[in-house]
Amino acid sequence: MSAPATDIIGIGNAIVDVIARTEDDFLVKQGMHKGSMRLIDETRAAAIYAAMGPAVEISGGSAANTIVGAASLGVRAGFVGKVKHDQLGRVFAHDIRAAGVQFATPPAGAGPSTGRSYILVTPDGERTMNTYLGAAQDLHPSDIDADAIAGAAITYLEGYLWDPPHAKQAFVKAAKIAHAAERCVALTLSDAFCVERHRAEFLDLMRSAMVDLMFANEHELKSLYETADLNSALAALRQDARLAVITRSEKGSLVVSREATEAVPAVPVERVVDATGAGDLFAAGFLVGLARGADYRDSARLGSLAAAEVISHLGARPQCSLATLAQENGLGS
Amino acid sequence: MSAPATDIIGIGNAIVDVIARTEDDFLVKQGMHKGSMRLIDETRAAAIYAAMGPAVEISGGSAANTIVGAASLGVRAGFVGKVKHDQLGRVFAHDIRAAGVQFATPPAGAGPSTGRSYILVTPDGERTMNTYLGAAQDLHPSDIDADAIAGAAITYLEGYLWDPPHAKQAFVKAAKIAHAAERCVALTLSDAFCVERHRAEFLDLMRSAMVDLMFANEHELKSLYETADLNSALAALRQDARLAVITRSEKGSLVVSREATEAVPAVPVERVVDATGAGDLFAAGFLVGLARGADYRDSARLGSLAAAEVISHLGARPQCSLATLAQENGLGS
Repeated sequence: MSAPATDIIGIGNAIVDVIARTEDDFLVKQGMHKGSMRLIDETRAAAIYAAMGPAVEISGGSAANTIVGAASLGVRAGFVGKVKHDQLGRVFAHDIRAAGVQFATPPAGAGPSTGRSYILVTPDGERTMNTYLGAAQDLHPSDIDADAIAGAAITYLEGYLWDPPHAKQAFVKAAKIAHAAERCVALTLSDAFCVERHRAEFLDLMRSAMVDLMFANEHELKSLYETADLNSALAALRQDARLAVITRSEKGSLVVSREATEAVPAVPVERVVDATGAGDLFAAGFLVGLARGADYRDSARLGSLAAAEVISHLGARPQCSLATLAQENGLGS
Repeated sequence: MSAPATDIIGIGNAIVDVIARTEDDFLVKQGMHKGSMRLIDETRAAAIYAAMGPAVEISGGSAANTIVGAASLGVRAGFVGKVKHDQLGRVFAHDIRAAGVQFATPPAGAGPSTGRSYILVTPDGERTMNTYLGAAQDLHPSDIDADAIAGAAITYLEGYLWDPPHAKQAFVKAAKIAHAAERCVALTLSDAFCVERHRAEFLDLMRSAMVDLMFANEHELKSLYETADLNSALAALRQDARLAVITRSEKGSLVVSREATEAVPAVPVERVVDATGAGDLFAAGFLVGLARGADYRDSARLGSLAAAEVISHLGARPQCSLATLAQENGLGS
């Protein structure tokens, strides 16, 4: 195994977030499931947008947010995902490159426009996402650069990639290349409804050791094992996963390995402005910790710190240098 | 004179702001004049964007910001400005309509893309703008709906409209229609360099009473009269303007009429996050005060309150109901 050329490469749906604050009754009227991500088609996207209040556009995408967070923490990071050659595609590409991330996936010249997630943020800071995948659906196995994946210490994949069919093939191809090069493959389960759609395959990914490290929040974990009881889910997880991290919002996180389950407290936040990206940025911190050889506890603390920053403002991309923030909190490299 | 159907119609360049935080040395390296607005072509826009950090996209445009502020304060408001039929054009149209503003100007089907302002916000909260006018240049006199203008109590025009040649004709057409219907015409001088470009014409607009009310900040006023001395400029202004409001940032504002000059303090702000839109939102509050028959002092206080809200966050559009904010501060309707 040669020294990695990159610390972390993420593969995910390339999405621009369209974020508006709203009251809870808007979600009720629109039949939206608060806190979830729902896939929508272009017609529904237009209807939701027309009904939404004034919005701001900020680059998003789950794995993309994680990778930007990792770059902000100071590691070498790359992203693979598909936009169209349109205005929002240029916005996405600009923002991720300007954050210091290698991003070389060619944009689609034709087909659907760049993917958007219409995100409603309620006064409690919870976010409800309606995602039109658009060009993100056109991520193909041919977009996976074998040398780049083989040269990355960690390949990080989002569960959302299992929604578009070709992207799933890209995902599998990347995981195989990574393992052939003796690298680590990490996966986030993304969303409880996403788990609902792909439960058997996600379980198989863990059980077949296609995935070495899994991230999930409590809801996703319970959905994975179809139980309302966290302890039962954790017991099952211990059998299936080599290493998993379960995030529990203000209750902190649990690092679950076959040897032990370690609880790590959350970094307190004065006010949750917008929870979008909390899990993504937790993953960023944890992965950067691992890449640097930190122990699980310090890796989870770095994850919590990055998550705390991103939920204290609108949008899922960090607004300050996370490396500086980490230094100030005794978690620097 | 019939009862107005609309309280305020604004005419301006339709722009989407592309906002990034930066350090002062970026402005120096890029040869940017801090605090100003510079017009740029598409090549320069691409170069600035490539050099900028990750950004957020928020609808902007000076008069558009004012009109959104007026709508947020609860009056009936309309906007006239040109976008292209593209993604950012749809963003602009969505945001202004979702804010409750009538916006019926047809988008351009061909020609340059929707205008963008690349805005750099330094740690002191000052903003430096680089504007690619794009489709905004295609605002023509034919976009002015005579009935709509004649039915608006106040027609509000931005000085920036004097940059694109056809827009200037639209401006003049609208002002004539408004006066023929015995309505009020207000103008903001927009920017000291804009005044530099159009000084003689701006002076003529006031002296010929084409404009009834003028907004300017201290720099713009000094540029108008080519003097470094505020008192000399004010003395000249008293001769030329029927009514003018000079904004002075944290020093508050001066309402200058032929009878008196009244100083009104600013609403204090804990921290200026982003000064973009301060003047625009001041104008919103002042115009709404006037439209409701408030005196100059209360109108200026409402202006200061709206400006204080907008500079306390990123972007030039209000993030809360200004009507509620006004109520809470004893300035409700």
